[in-house]
Parts: sequence; structure tokens; C-alpha cells
Amino acid sequence: MASDERSARRPGALSRDRMEAFSDGVLAIAITLLVLDLAVRPPGTPLEQFLNAWPSYLAYVVSFLTIGAAWIAHNALTDRLDHADVLLLRLNLLFLLVVAFLPFPTRLVADAIDDGDAERVAVVVYGLTLLAIRLTFVLMDAYCRRAHLLMPTDDDPDLQEERRKVGYVVAGYALTIVLGVAVPLLAVGLYFALAIVLVVPFRTVGQLFSGRFGETGSDIP
Amino acid sequence: MASDERSARRPGALSRDRMEAFSDGVLAIAITLLVLDLAVRPPGTPLEQFLNAWPSYLAYVVSFLTIGAAWIAHNALTDRLDHADVLLLRLNLLFLLVVAFLPFPTRLVADAIDDGDAERVAVVVYGLTLLAIRLTFVLMDAYCRRAHLLMPTDDDPDLQEERRKVGYVVAGYALTIVLGVAVPLLAVGLYFALAIVLVVPFRTVGQLFSGRFGETGSDIP
Amino acid sequence: MASDERSARRPGALSRDRMEAFSDGVLAIAITLLVLDLAVRPPGTPLEQFLNAWPSYLAYVVSFLTIGAAWIAHNALTDRLDHADVLLLRLNLLFLLVVAFLPFPTRLVADAIDDGDAERVAVVVYGLTLLAIRLTFVLMDAYCRRAHLLMPTDDDPDLQEERRKVGYVVAGYALTIVLGVAVPLLAVGLYFALAIVLVVPFRTVGQLFSGRFGETGSDIP
Amino acid sequence: MASDERSARRPGALSRDRMEAFSDGVLAIAITLLVLDLAVRPPGTPLEQFLNAWPSYLAYVVSFLTIGAAWIAHNALTDRLDHADVLLLRLNLLFLLVVAFLPFPTRLVADAIDDGDAERVAVVVYGLTLLAIRLTFVLMDAYCRRAHLLMPTDDDPDLQEERRKVGYVVAGYALTIVLGVAVPLLAVGLYFALAIVLVVPFRTVGQLFSGRFGETGSDIP
Repeated sequence: MASDERSARRPGALSRDRMEAFSDGVLAIAITLLVLDLAVRPPGTPLEQFLNAWPSYLAYVVSFLTIGAAWIAHNALTDRLDHADVLLLRLNLLFLLVVAFLPFPTRLVADAIDDGDAERVAVVVYGLTLLAIRLTFVLMDAYCRRAHLLMPTDDDPDLQEERRKVGYVVAGYALTIVLGVAVPLLAVGLYFALAIVLVVPFRTVGQLFSGRFGETGSDIP
Repeated sequence: MASDERSARRPGALSRDRMEAFSDGVLAIAITLLVLDLAVRPPGTPLEQFLNAWPSYLAYVVSFLTIGAAWIAHNALTDRLDHADVLLLRLNLLFLLVVAFLPFPTRLVADAIDDGDAERVAVVVYGLTLLAIRLTFVLMDAYCRRAHLLMPTDDDPDLQEERRKVGYVVAGYALTIVLGVAVPLLAVGLYFALAIVLVVPFRTVGQLFSGRFGETGSDIP
Repeated sequence: MASDERSARRPGALSRDRMEAFSDGVLAIAITLLVLDLAVRPPGTPLEQFLNAWPSYLAYVVSFLTIGAAWIAHNALTDRLDHADVLLLRLNLLFLLVVAFLPFPTRLVADAIDDGDAERVAVVVYGLTLLAIRLTFVLMDAYCRRAHLLMPTDDDPDLQEERRKVGYVVAGYALTIVLGVAVPLLAVGLYFALAIVLVVPFRTVGQLFSGRFGETGSDIP
Repeated sequence: MASDERSARRPGALSRDRMEAFSDGVLAIAITLLVLDLAVRPPGTPLEQFLNAWPSYLAYVVSFLTIGAAWIAHNALTDRLDHADVLLLRLNLLFLLVVAFLPFPTRLVADAIDDGDAERVAVVVYGLTLLAIRLTFVLMDAYCRRAHLLMPTDDDPDLQEERRKVGYVVAGYALTIVLGVAVPLLAVGLYFALAIVLVVPFRTVGQLFSGRFGETGSDIP
């Protein structure tokens, strides 16, 4: 970026670029720190210890996909952002606070398996964090629209997808949290299913399988 | 950036861009590493252990908001930076050294609760670090103005906000550190209050509630 | 980037830039987290303890070079990318999931030395992860070509190098995994050799030694 | 960056931008991970435990400044880089491998104080790593010049400073390593002095104090 361009730029445009850079950083670190809590689970032979740790692998994948989906949605939102303002930077910080917290409940879930009470606590805290990630993103998205921060172009397909899904996903989290008090292990399975729902772009995959993808080729952005 | 642009650029402009990138990286990592020190606190039922760890959650939020506010201020300063120079890169490094240190006193505070003497040490070290973050930033800001590194445009609203607040906040930290020797737990509450003061853009929020925000809409950068 | 440029840009171009930024972040973090698992290995004098930890140094170097080679290949692919699409972002996420997992089997290998059974498990899990990194990259590359996401320019020399090598390397991993069940330590040596094969640009090095490099000078990109 | 610009760009220019981004990431992470090894040092009152850990604070500052100086030099080199080539990416990876390793010997130094033999090992390993950081950077710089990768503009003042100092610093490290075998604690002090030498831009500071800085103002890049 040459300095001349910079002077000519509308206020807030640089804030948007650095908001993206900082958010990319926090999301990338949170998603990569998850690996630190993986560990084999004694007792048993080395192979058994490795396999017994499956809950921590499952929690790794669920949290990875959830943060990955949060990154895709965040990317799709800022892709249409015309500029950032003072409040959006704070809402973004709140969103990052919740995402950066996720490795802690992930560790709780991985550690709690086979201890009913601990499982219950872990699964509820985990679900509340997943829910809070979604809700703080909805807040950011709603604020961007209310404060006219978005460009008047069509929304990114990933942003449309996120908006279509978010109601179902929030309801899914709420239900799973309640259910998790009774059957903790089932809840982990459902969080996994919800992470898949968030990450898989069903519309595009549908087009792929119905053969319509090949026709439009690279026009699907 | 095409190579041709690069040659034509004034010296120091690239240094500014990479100073931003490196600072974003360090701040993003420091803010995300805070999660590693969260842990449940035995003894008790799993729920009690989780709830007993509230001091570490509070310390997480205070440190997160403090680094977040430091990032917002840093962003606002470099947004108006015309170019970086040899000394600014070093002052920036000093600022980052202090910010990157914060996870250590955060851990001290989280670990020390319920042990009077340890609390006292932790709370004072924590306060001194928070104070040092502010002071090194003031130093950077003052140097940028003295060495004419800023562009002659209006300052970013977040930078104005930071400058208005910084005197009160520094006084607040100094008072709280003294107070923390006598009543450590109260000090943690005050650090939290100061973090909120740093992060909340009172002027903009005031406009929001007085209804003037809607009128100006996206013009508030 | 000025806002006007942004509006004029084809859809998906920003997604590509942020896909690069996010991937750079995850790869940089995964490669740097490897250091956390280095530790001296009692018993013995301090020097013996330091030297006894050689397997963890070897695992550090192998994993560092493997992630480094993955970054070079990823860089070479996105260098020729015209734009990203919805599916590519997901395939990229899958690739990152596997790379970010690598520090865990690296730790297993470093910890397992001198325990036959544990070595066997560690070496197989490690090899499967190395293999999965390669295969998910091949998947991304194949998808980019199938969906016409690449620019019609010549491919980057590093991408050509990667494509030439990948078949041999995948076969090498498969063989080494089988071999690792019988002779675990030998497998670690072979993973090291494969990492070297991935990282060293033999064609360019050959030109260097045959003296043809000096003639063409900076024309070799 | 619009796609049109990208097509028009000379090959290797994007590799340079991503080499910068990836290196910034690794250096920022390595510098920030240093905080994880800080810990109070029992026995004693909480204040004594905090103060007894001074060697780890010293090691934190030395390593922070050394990586910071490495970042400044790297920044100054790539600032003048016209484009990256296949070999430079590998040399850069080697440089990052050594820098990312530094948190490990830093931890060794912090842990070894008050144990003569362990100190000796730690201080030598630490010094060798500091030396290797410098030497791999000299290698990159020499390669860039030999392969004509730099732009024909004047070199960055930080790069000139680095080149002036590097001979003395390398000799300093070599001497200190030998000395460290006999008097380990003294060596830590000398590493600190060398880090200060690397970071402080004596020429500019001299101009500041001689009053010549004020005259030229922002012209010193």
C-alpha cells in the first residue's frame, strides 16, 4: 500500500484491514492451541492408551470445525464490510474473547469422560461456549447491517449460508445443552453433528452431486 | 503489492506495514495464550471445582480486555502513521515486551487467590504490568508526534479517546496498586473496572443512547 | 487496499487473501508450538540429560521441515490461485486440521523412545499424520484444477516440484509406516529423509552445482 | 490486491509477501511463547519466590530482545528484496527453525540457575543457538546479494547497522560461549549486553543526543 493511497482512503478502512488481520491471528491461534491438550490416556498398553484418548480427539475435531466455521463466517462478513467503526471493533473483541475461551471447555470435555458428574459440567460449559460464539457473531452481523457498514453488493454465499443456518444451530445448541445434563456423551455427538452442519456447504455440495456444478464451473464463488 | 509500487514508495512505509503485522501477531498470541492458564480448582464436586476457579476467569477477562484495548489504541495510532523509523520500531518492541509479559502476572493472580501474601504480590505485579503497558504506549504516541511521523489528518476517534482517558487510567492503576497491598481482592475488581473504562467508547455509546447515532449512521468511523 | 478497488474485485478474491493469511497463521503456529515439547531427559549429568533427549530434537526437525514443506507447497498453490470458492475454503480447513494435529504425534515419538511398543504406536500414528498432510494437499491441488480456480499462467516451480515428488513421497510414507511396525527407530530416520526430499529443491540445487545457476542469476524464480 | 495486478506481477513477488507473512508469524509466536516458561521459584514467602525467579526474567528479556533484533534485521532485508526465489524460501525456513528453537534453551537457562553443571550446559546451548540465529541470517543476506535478489536502492539503515555489527556480535557470542563454560552466570550477563548491542541503533541515538536528529526530523527513515 503506497502512502498516497492511504491518505486518500476513507476513515475506518484501515481499521477493517487490521480487524481482519487481528481476528485471523486470534482464530488461527485458538484453533492451533487445541492440539496442546491432546494426550494419551493410561492405563493399558501403548496402543490402548492411544485409543482410549478418543474423546480428546473427538473434542479436538468438534472445536476445530466450530472455530473453522466461525472463521469462514467472519471472513464472509468482513468480505462485504465497507469499513469498521468504533463499536464494531469492540463487538469483534467480544466475539474473539468467546472463541479464544473455547480451548478451555474443550479440555474439560476431553478430561471428563468416564466421570458422570464432571461430564455433565464439561458438556454444559462447552455447549454454552459454542452457543456464545454463534450469538456474538449474530450480534456483529446485526450491528453491521443496522449501522450500514456493509457494501451494497450481494452478500457472500457463505454469509447467506450462515444466516440460513444460524437459527437452527442456536436451537440445536440450546436443546443439546439441556439434553447434555441427562446424557452427556450423546451431547458430544450432537455438538459434532452441529459442527458438521456449520461447516458443510450443503447447497454447493448438492449442486456438485446433481452435476450442476460442472456446468457453472468456477462461477460459483 | 506490485514491485513497481514498492520501488516508488517512500522509505519506511514497508517497515510500518510489517510493524503492524508483527504487532498484530504478538498481541493476538498474547491474548490467546491467556486461555492456557484456565483450570478447574479442586477440591469439591466437578461443579464446585469449576465455579471455584472464578478468579482465573475474572483474570482472563481483565487481561483479555486490557490487551484488546491496547490493540485498539495501537491500531488507532498506526492508522495515522505516515511511516515508521528506526527508533519507533524499538519503542514498539518495548511495548510488545510488556504486553507479551502479561500472561505471567495473570497466572499469578489466578493462582494466588485465598493466600493473602501471594495475593498481595500477584496483584502488585499485575498492576505494575498493566501500568507499564499504558506508559510504553504513551511513550510511542509521544515519540510519533515529536518525530513528525503522523499524517496531518485528523486523529482516529479511538486515538483521541485513548489520549483523553490515559491520564485517569494511569492514576487509577497507581492508586489501585497501593490499595492492592492492603485489600488485594478489591484491586482485582478495580483492574476490571479500569479495563472496562479502557474498552468502552463512552462518547459513541452516549450518542447511541441519546439517539444521535441513528442520524449520523455510518459516518461515525 | 482502497475501498474502491475492493468493490471492483471479482467475488472470492478477498476469500483467497484471507485463506492465505489464516493458513499462514495456522502453519506458523503449528511449526512454532513444536518447541514446547522439547525437554531434557533424566537421569544423568546435565549434559547427558541434554544429549539423551536427541530423539525429541530429531522429531522437532522432521516435523519442522514437514510443516515447512507443506507451507512452501501451499504458498506455491495459492500463488497461482485466481480466486477461492466455498468448497476450497473447506478443503483448506481439512488440510489445516491435519497439519495442526502434527505436534501431538511429534510429542508421542519424542516420548516413546526406548519403549518398543510405545515406539511402534508413535511411529505409525506419526507416519499416518505425515501421509494425511500430503494427501489432503493433493486433494486441494486436484480440486483447484478441476474447478478451474487457477490462473492460466505457468505453475510455480515449487508447485511443479511438489507434484513431481508427491507420488514417491506418498509411497515412501506408506512403506515406512509398514516398516515402522517392525523397526520403529529406522522409520524415524526414513521420515527425516523424506522431509529432506520434500524440502530440498533438487533441480535448483543441481543447477547451482553445475554452475548454470550463476548464468541465469535471478531469473530462476 | 486485485486479481489483475496479480497476473501482471513478476513471478516470485507473491512468494516474497508470503515469506514475510509467515516469518512475521513464526517470529511473533516464538517471542510470545517465551512467557510460558516464567514461573515463581519456591521455597520462601510469595515475594521471595517471585524475586528468586529473576534468572527467568533475565532470560525472558535477553531472548525477547534477540528475537526482536532478528525481526528488525529480517524486516530490513526483505524491505529491499525485489523477489524471493526457491532457495531463499529454504534458507528462510532454516533461519526460522533456529529462531523457533530459542524458547527451549531459554527455559534451560531459567531452570538451571544455582546448579553449576546444568548452568554450564544451558549457557553453552543457549549461546550456540544465539550464534546460529545470527549465522543463518548472514547466510540469507549473503545469498540475497549473490543471487541479485535485492533492489538496486540504498539499503535500509537497519540492514546497514546489522551488517556493521554482525562481525563483532558473532565474535562476542563465540567468546562468551567459551567463557560460559568457566563462569556461566557471567555469560548470561554478556548475552544480555550483546542483545542490547543488537537492538539499540547507536548511530541514530547518537544523532538524537548530539541534537542533529531534530534538524533532519522525519527524514531519518
